[in-house]
Amino acid sequence: MASSEGNKLWGGRFVGNTDPIMEKFNASIAYDQRMWEADIKGSKAYVKALQKAGLVTQNEMEQILTGLDKVFDEWSKGEFKIKPGDEDIHTANERRLKEFIGDPAGKLHTGRSRNDQVATDMRLWLRDTINTLKELALQLISTMVERAAVEIEILCPGYTHMQRAQPIRWSHWILSHAVALSRDVERLEDIRKHVNVMPLGSGAIAGNPFDIDRELLVFNSMCLCTAEFLFWASMCLTHLSKMAEDLILYSTKEFSFITLTDSILKKSQKCSVTVSALGHVPIPFLQNMKKYDILYYFKTFSKYVLSLQEDKEAMFDTYDTVHAVLQVATGVISTLMVNQPAMERALSPDMLATDLAYLLVRKGMPFREAHSCAGKAVYIAESKNIHLSQITVEDLQTVSPLFDKDVSSVWDYNRSVEQYSAPGGTARSSVTAQIEHFRTWLQAQKQKP
Amino acid sequence: MASSEGNKLWGGRFVGNTDPIMEKFNASIAYDQRMWEADIKGSKAYVKALQKAGLVTQNEMEQILTGLDKVFDEWSKGEFKIKPGDEDIHTANERRLKEFIGDPAGKLHTGRSRNDQVATDMRLWLRDTINTLKELALQLISTMVERAAVEIEILCPGYTHMQRAQPIRWSHWILSHAVALSRDVERLEDIRKHVNVMPLGSGAIAGNPFDIDRELLVFNSMCLCTAEFLFWASMCLTHLSKMAEDLILYSTKEFSFITLTDSILKKSQKCSVTVSALGHVPIPFLQNMKKYDILYYFKTFSKYVLSLQEDKEAMFDTYDTVHAVLQVATGVISTLMVNQPAMERALSPDMLATDLAYLLVRKGMPFREAHSCAGKAVYIAESKNIHLSQITVEDLQTVSPLFDKDVSSVWDYNRSVEQYSAPGGTARSSVTAQIEHFRTWLQAQKQKP
Amino acid sequence: MASSEGNKLWGGRFVGNTDPIMEKFNASIAYDQRMWEADIKGSKAYVKALQKAGLVTQNEMEQILTGLDKVFDEWSKGEFKIKPGDEDIHTANERRLKEFIGDPAGKLHTGRSRNDQVATDMRLWLRDTINTLKELALQLISTMVERAAVEIEILCPGYTHMQRAQPIRWSHWILSHAVALSRDVERLEDIRKHVNVMPLGSGAIAGNPFDIDRELLVFNSMCLCTAEFLFWASMCLTHLSKMAEDLILYSTKEFSFITLTDSILKKSQKCSVTVSALGHVPIPFLQNMKKYDILYYFKTFSKYVLSLQEDKEAMFDTYDTVHAVLQVATGVISTLMVNQPAMERALSPDMLATDLAYLLVRKGMPFREAHSCAGKAVYIAESKNIHLSQITVEDLQTVSPLFDKDVSSVWDYNRSVEQYSAPGGTARSSVTAQIEHFRTWLQAQKQKP
Amino acid sequence: MASSEGNKLWGGRFVGNTDPIMEKFNASIAYDQRMWEADIKGSKAYVKALQKAGLVTQNEMEQILTGLDKVFDEWSKGEFKIKPGDEDIHTANERRLKEFIGDPAGKLHTGRSRNDQVATDMRLWLRDTINTLKELALQLISTMVERAAVEIEILCPGYTHMQRAQPIRWSHWILSHAVALSRDVERLEDIRKHVNVMPLGSGAIAGNPFDIDRELLVFNSMCLCTAEFLFWASMCLTHLSKMAEDLILYSTKEFSFITLTDSILKKSQKCSVTVSALGHVPIPFLQNMKKYDILYYFKTFSKYVLSLQEDKEAMFDTYDTVHAVLQVATGVISTLMVNQPAMERALSPDMLATDLAYLLVRKGMPFREAHSCAGKAVYIAESKNIHLSQITVEDLQTVSPLFDKDVSSVWDYNRSVEQYSAPGGTARSSVTAQIEHFRTWLQAQKQKP
Repeated sequence: MASSEGNKLWGGRFVGNTDPIMEKFNASIAYDQRMWEADIKGSKAYVKALQKAGLVTQNEMEQILTGLDKVFDEWSKGEFKIKPGDEDIHTANERRLKEFIGDPAGKLHTGRSRNDQVATDMRLWLRDTINTLKELALQLISTMVERAAVEIEILCPGYTHMQRAQPIRWSHWILSHAVALSRDVERLEDIRKHVNVMPLGSGAIAGNPFDIDRELLVFNSMCLCTAEFLFWASMCLTHLSKMAEDLILYSTKEFSFITLTDSILKKSQKCSVTVSALGHVPIPFLQNMKKYDILYYFKTFSKYVLSLQEDKEAMFDTYDTVHAVLQVATGVISTLMVNQPAMERALSPDMLATDLAYLLVRKGMPFREAHSCAGKAVYIAESKNIHLSQITVEDLQTVSPLFDKDVSSVWDYNRSVEQYSAPGGTARSSVTAQIEHFRTWLQAQKQKP
Repeated sequence: MASSEGNKLWGGRFVGNTDPIMEKFNASIAYDQRMWEADIKGSKAYVKALQKAGLVTQNEMEQILTGLDKVFDEWSKGEFKIKPGDEDIHTANERRLKEFIGDPAGKLHTGRSRNDQVATDMRLWLRDTINTLKELALQLISTMVERAAVEIEILCPGYTHMQRAQPIRWSHWILSHAVALSRDVERLEDIRKHVNVMPLGSGAIAGNPFDIDRELLVFNSMCLCTAEFLFWASMCLTHLSKMAEDLILYSTKEFSFITLTDSILKKSQKCSVTVSALGHVPIPFLQNMKKYDILYYFKTFSKYVLSLQEDKEAMFDTYDTVHAVLQVATGVISTLMVNQPAMERALSPDMLATDLAYLLVRKGMPFREAHSCAGKAVYIAESKNIHLSQITVEDLQTVSPLFDKDVSSVWDYNRSVEQYSAPGGTARSSVTAQIEHFRTWLQAQKQKP
Repeated sequence: MASSEGNKLWGGRFVGNTDPIMEKFNASIAYDQRMWEADIKGSKAYVKALQKAGLVTQNEMEQILTGLDKVFDEWSKGEFKIKPGDEDIHTANERRLKEFIGDPAGKLHTGRSRNDQVATDMRLWLRDTINTLKELALQLISTMVERAAVEIEILCPGYTHMQRAQPIRWSHWILSHAVALSRDVERLEDIRKHVNVMPLGSGAIAGNPFDIDRELLVFNSMCLCTAEFLFWASMCLTHLSKMAEDLILYSTKEFSFITLTDSILKKSQKCSVTVSALGHVPIPFLQNMKKYDILYYFKTFSKYVLSLQEDKEAMFDTYDTVHAVLQVATGVISTLMVNQPAMERALSPDMLATDLAYLLVRKGMPFREAHSCAGKAVYIAESKNIHLSQITVEDLQTVSPLFDKDVSSVWDYNRSVEQYSAPGGTARSSVTAQIEHFRTWLQAQKQKP
Repeated sequence: MASSEGNKLWGGRFVGNTDPIMEKFNASIAYDQRMWEADIKGSKAYVKALQKAGLVTQNEMEQILTGLDKVFDEWSKGEFKIKPGDEDIHTANERRLKEFIGDPAGKLHTGRSRNDQVATDMRLWLRDTINTLKELALQLISTMVERAAVEIEILCPGYTHMQRAQPIRWSHWILSHAVALSRDVERLEDIRKHVNVMPLGSGAIAGNPFDIDRELLVFNSMCLCTAEFLFWASMCLTHLSKMAEDLILYSTKEFSFITLTDSILKKSQKCSVTVSALGHVPIPFLQNMKKYDILYYFKTFSKYVLSLQEDKEAMFDTYDTVHAVLQVATGVISTLMVNQPAMERALSPDMLATDLAYLLVRKGMPFREAHSCAGKAVYIAESKNIHLSQITVEDLQTVSPLFDKDVSSVWDYNRSVEQYSAPGGTARSSVTAQIEHFRTWLQAQKQKP
């Protein structure tokens, strides 16, 4: 037997009464539906190019355009029906077009491969997506900047690894997160450029059949854009995740710096019930937000690598998540209530140890030595069980003779934040300048195409 | 202003007219629906425990059981309707129960937290899942073993890193993959044990309120089982992926060892169309299968880490994939056609170089030296542009005087595979023994509970 | 031109003056060195099997064994020198053996492939590793259990998502983490079984050449064990990560529940300096520990998939990390200082809202309704800006007429924890029982082989 | 007991006689050493800024600069000795500087935090890295382009999913990979811009202490650059991986399109021995290259997320890998030998089915219908067991009356590739144009700063 027969010898294929491949397929077309608009837009542009190249007549073009408008209408009204024979959104639209206009529909695909069509659709979709997400990000940044402007007087501890480090302005905390988000907006612009630069097939059809290799280049370049978008999203979510982490901490009973108001999630009361009828409402969502960092990237990127279809799923999933998270963040920032007394109670003199060191540096001591002297002063205060600000000048002089009565000027949180007046610093002037910078930048961003 | 007011100061919350959190929620309940059966089963067991503990009366228990049966019926008939107020599948069932039987429904949740309930449901679901997947895996292994039995005579090259290594039986290739899958079945049994051992809350309700910490232990232990299941799935998919990789290679025009028949995917012709109306049909699916390895794990595991809800999504996704892939693999293996002449044409004398070395080892030469002599013989053949089997004994004797006329016995592929008669070897007796071993093992597996 | 010539036409190969492949190789042998002991042990067992099979003489075996002992000696004394010609640890040992005993060294590898040898070495190494890690984990659990026994009187809040949930015993917090670790120890035992069960090549050499396919099975089975070990490590690190996350939170100034003493890391003062001469010392390490969760798995598992060599790197890296983290965790737990007053100050009446609900359940109200009543009581207290325990009975009766004077019994944290007396509960009796259970379990674990 | 004492109560800290934290630390300083040069460069720039700001005198600056030059010298000569007290490369350099010039060394760190210093060092290192990798990538692209120019006549099959799709030029295959790499070079330029734009601390020190928050911004911005570099590397490695995958396939005995010459890896013969003394040499390295795709990213990115220290490890690892892989790829491409007859034997008439469809399209048939007719022709050929080109015109006319004698013009591979004359097409003119484009682009790239 040179070649053994396969079928029926070892039994049938499926155990159950549903076809697993069909099920997977049906799941994928549900995703695809999002692209109906991009697909019709792309086809309209393509048929015009075909007409210019002489591959369809003026009359055929007009029939196709009219037919596509009808398909568009059905989708808009929620009346479009996927049929069992449709492979994906692209063939569904083509099938419906043929039902409307007959044979000329078949000409729409001259010289255009499926990959080419999918790439074009993804490009159009991605372009819209970038616009929407940029707008949401700008709205969030704007909310943050205006809040920072109103609450510029409030001081609070700055933390490193959850340990109090030095006093800052509450506005400074807000703006430090706004900076990261503003960079995300700028990176999004870069991706938009890459998406636009991408060579499209329209010029290629002048009398020639489609070129499979050239078209693969187009497709690969589209995939690269998707990968960049996913990377961008993971960076943006990481930035929002860091903010969420701080907000959760600040809203614990133990910190009590802020209160996240119940009103935020009023619309979706269900969520609140899920976790605790008695507890604070938006925590669960923030908890999730906290986790949307690099792991999210792994999740979406793994999908992306798995296959072309899951690639689209990854894009859509990511879009939905960023879309939701940006809005929730705007809601949280705009409605939280600040507990200024609790923030100020959390300031303590040991957070001024670095200022103590700088007092000595200004008197000529090398920094490393001054740093070590401040460390000794902290140690003395701890041994005597008193605040750092309560050490006597005499005790300080045992550490360094450079200490003098003027040390008392150090124990003032307001003075401490005011000394950082360089750009990006905690001084009122620096924070105000940064707010102005942001307002100008936001204005400029909104005016971009 | 000690505490700044939040709301309305910086504007509303949502840009569009849909609530992003609601949308995410709606997506999650769609996933949840799979658990309706497990949820009702779990509730029925729970109410019986409550009655024993004296927390519901005999009468209340009977009302609840009857009500749950009605809910079950609605789901079975596809008549159950999720309502806007339902948070998840668990509250949906509870709400419906209350509609059927009124107040007693409220007693069902005495001393049972949501986490406890979810954990129980997942446990029940996972138990059924394990049974189903085990059955599918056994069917695949059985198909492979019977195919190996029928085609035991066919020889082909064994490959290492896509390079021809030594002649083997085609059945040997099949069985080497069956071995990996049989281990997967055994590992699945381990997980079943962990799932069953898990402590349940039923004993905890004897007069006591639920114990949040104890219950967290239960829940964490469930999560560990989920993690183990995901790990198992990624290992199993990795094994199938390796098999798919070989099958794709063997079905290229250049190899032409096997033909994947069109009939396999006849039912889902759409898939075939997607890729190429002219091309080989099942390749795309195998291509995906080839990628379902460790990346799949990253995808699902990232989900798993992200949140409890996505944890369930990860489980369901993974189940669907393994469920589909096992069936497709069975279909592919049972219907592929073997091109025996092509396989045999791919055997070449240089694949017997190791046998040449062993000839010398048997005459007393240390293995390392023999290995080096065989290498020299290969070099001579290459320089003379002849097959290794065409070198004269004289030429071989320049490499080692131990070579003799008996070297001609080496150039026989059949003799080569027959010399590996240890368990797991390529000899007909070894392969036959392994087939018998598998048949016995399959019999035993099928008789397990 | 049938075949175009490659070399020299387009220039040389390397830009710099070092060979990148050589550099990669040199890095890998550094890793390999860890296996010298396992490699020699494995070779000694193998040569004995060869002698039994008649493939080496008694005399040759003795020469080889003596030579291997000399190689062992050199490694032990740190005198072994890797030479430029050594490919890896296995060939290095073989080369040295040949220098010691000459030709018979060549016979050591009869019928044993490199993969076979590597798999055996990894098996031996993994077996030792499992023993060491198990011992360290038991020591950590033991430290936790004894601390829990001493501090059983201390109450503190139990947290869910960083929000105070209900009062628990501090010992209860400790033991809930000990439970997870004890499961890790048990899972480690499972892996040990899989490692031991693994078929080895020794039986295969009775007169037969090695069987490449069978040997691949051995190797794949070893890889599966490595994968399982990596999965285990990631689960264990995830458990320790959760503990670290809590410890960091509890040691913030705002919580002040515990103090991590400077003395812990005295030996490695450098680390403390790195982060802050003024700050709390062990935080940075705990911060890392907090991150060693599933990401660690991705890191090591990606390595594992990349190649055989990186597979070993993944194993060694993982071992080092778990080895260090278990010890540091033991150090942290054994030396931290508990601030009992701060813990007790953090208890507040609203954490008893669930108890309030259970009071009603005990009087016959369905749980759902009782839960809702407690929620209303919380709302009243918040509106009046008083503690939940300060609501008058009259006010409570507006919520439910079932409330009575006996409600005062609810406002007692000690009573609250005592009511959970089921196994795993917070009652003193439950905690004591769990401590006893652990002591017995630890005893049993230490007596296992 | 208000606060329980920790130490000694539950025993000592370490089991073994080495400190696990110290071991981890020692491993990290080994990595750090790479930064010695960047660290000294950064310090020299910084001290000049300090002098301008009046924080060190002209004399102190000169002492520090001279001292740093001495430290530089020691590193260059391999004479620098890490001492047990050194925390990392930065403190090691500072310690050595102090040994050379005494107290003024302490002034070098005025207003500069460790994070600031690390960020600056990484910036300088990354800038050099980008230059080096760009140069290597250009060399590879140049090699590919020149090879494409020489071998423009050779035709071979183009593959989709390992299935033969249509005839292309071998040069076309080469250039399609060159396109992806040229995009990588351009993306690398983008990262260079981000690295350069980054705000540095130098302006911040005019009389002010350092600003911890501002400095965190600098540091975060550096981390973002690292993340972008890692993403870039994974994309570049993915492109090289795809090329490796094809090369491995083309070099199998079954394809025999190319021969990877032994001479390539002559220098590192050890590698060849590792895998097989008889086998093809560079396969193992290509096999690894094939795997360096997205998984590599997961590996390095997980490291990156784990901690600052591992962040650097990720950068260095990634650099080493890309550095090696680019060079090996250049070596492989420049020395491989093409087997033109084998490539041409692999062309078969069924690869011209699309051309057959286009024949009908040119005669006015809608594309979809033409595509279907070609499919029927393929079916006829298969049923008659003849080549597609052997079908008679009569038989073709049963499919469509538009078929005529001119169908014979289709069966010419050369004509087939020549019809794709659009930019990026397979026509000789298109390929030549692309080669010229690349030569110009390469020239421009080399002249950039």
